[in-house]
Amino acid sequence: MRVGVIGLGAMGMGAAKSCLRAGLETTGCDLRDSARAEFAGAGGSACASPADLPPGLEAVLLLVVNAAQTEAALFGPEGCAGRLAPGAVVISSATMSPADAARLAETTAGHGLLYLDAPVSGGAAKAAAGEMTVMASGDPVAFAKAEPVLAAVATKVWRLGDRPGIGATVKVVHQLLAGVHIAVAAEAMSLGIRAGADPRQLYEVVTSAAGNSWMFENRMARVLEGDDAPRSAVDIFVKDLGLVAELARSLDHPVPLASQAQQLFTAASAMGHGRADDGFVIRVWQALTGIPLPGRDDPA
Amino acid sequence: MRVGVIGLGAMGMGAAKSCLRAGLETTGCDLRDSARAEFAGAGGSACASPADLPPGLEAVLLLVVNAAQTEAALFGPEGCAGRLAPGAVVISSATMSPADAARLAETTAGHGLLYLDAPVSGGAAKAAAGEMTVMASGDPVAFAKAEPVLAAVATKVWRLGDRPGIGATVKVVHQLLAGVHIAVAAEAMSLGIRAGADPRQLYEVVTSAAGNSWMFENRMARVLEGDDAPRSAVDIFVKDLGLVAELARSLDHPVPLASQAQQLFTAASAMGHGRADDGFVIRVWQALTGIPLPGRDDPA
Repeated sequence: MRVGVIGLGAMGMGAAKSCLRAGLETTGCDLRDSARAEFAGAGGSACASPADLPPGLEAVLLLVVNAAQTEAALFGPEGCAGRLAPGAVVISSATMSPADAARLAETTAGHGLLYLDAPVSGGAAKAAAGEMTVMASGDPVAFAKAEPVLAAVATKVWRLGDRPGIGATVKVVHQLLAGVHIAVAAEAMSLGIRAGADPRQLYEVVTSAAGNSWMFENRMARVLEGDDAPRSAVDIFVKDLGLVAELARSLDHPVPLASQAQQLFTAASAMGHGRADDGFVIRVWQALTGIPLPGRDDPA
Repeated sequence: MRVGVIGLGAMGMGAAKSCLRAGLETTGCDLRDSARAEFAGAGGSACASPADLPPGLEAVLLLVVNAAQTEAALFGPEGCAGRLAPGAVVISSATMSPADAARLAETTAGHGLLYLDAPVSGGAAKAAAGEMTVMASGDPVAFAKAEPVLAAVATKVWRLGDRPGIGATVKVVHQLLAGVHIAVAAEAMSLGIRAGADPRQLYEVVTSAAGNSWMFENRMARVLEGDDAPRSAVDIFVKDLGLVAELARSLDHPVPLASQAQQLFTAASAMGHGRADDGFVIRVWQALTGIPLPGRDDPA
């Protein structure tokens, strides 16, 4: 099978290499020279523009930032939709609103192509291992056509229904939880430090008790190490909690906790920490209260 | 060892029975006839007032609602402090502010008694099995004296330092996380239902992904079953998030997410759901949006 992967970022690079490992003839597409060089070094073909993908691909996996980039890569002046094989499948994996997913699915169908609404989770390490989770919805024919690619990049594919938009809905709701869990992890850790608790002991107690979350355990470990290299950046949650707010408003559904969390990530971004690892939203509380953080802020 | 357990509620009954099982000579104390009858049926002694506990007890474990009840049970007109053996240990396990814990420790020392700041977690099932988690701080002599009781009721005892108040701090920070995780679980589940996702599928996706929390997994299972019998009630989190706000204010530390969550539990309580299981804070969103909930609200 001949496949294109558009967007060789934290998730896309791992997915593209996983396709190669699975024996798919894979071309990666990214504007950045360094990303193309890395993928070529792994044995793949690479191009800078979707318009330069080889003609007649049977599947294209899009792991770009948002709906606008997805739309441009498919249908823009440099888009690839016109060069795909008839009946090829578009696997749309950027996090976007259900409304955008439904709209893109319709445009894609108009080009005689199949569409799978297929946002992913798992982080860069899981993507590199071909072990992503995919939250997908779409026509069974689109699922069938996408199967070799899904098998290459994911260990778990949720089949959430026949209608594009359900996958996007579940992903956006998932991001509501993920974003609030990261922000409240930071709020709690900061309060504990301010109150004189030992941060590592607090971490151990919480992670062994009912107050734990996947995000507390994962992100506060990085905060305690003082390691702010972004695996997932603060600005991703400014964006994704914006999608939560957009979906909620469209449904007349209040989301007070998600809205508050978005303001906290926005504050961190305003302070210049938009590209820091998302757990470093804790710097908002540090700026307000002067708490010491472990690592470089802490002479001990 | 002769022990008293004051408060035979969800946690205290399990702890008192665990003391009996461990061979400690245990008297349970509770105002409610039904609780005393249950404990007597399990082979323990029972009394209605702390003033009626047998004289000369070497340890008393307090599992009442808050600092005021703890203080009354020890030092009020019906208090037991004057009847304990000299050098007995007071194991104070109600969730309270660090300031109250430090104050009670000082008063206790003034009576020639030892004090262990020892809040617990784990829920009623773990308490019944003698498998609570204890987050404790206090003098090593108090830890040593309390050892037979702690061994009877807990599988994990965190030793968080020599100063009473650290245990309370860690518990209050833990409750910040627990309370926000429950409220955001409800917010996300409600939004997902409103957006047309299947609630059970949404639950399965989230609990297998990075958006999971201990509380989402535990409490939303009950919401999906329509089972609102209280294991931990909405009003507990109105109270505990109040302790979070009190601690945070005393330290000049903002807690926007905890404050928002407390307002949501308060709203659920205002609607008459204060004694419902805490995950049923989701009824706030139901009241606002009209979403159907599984179980009795859902004809399907």
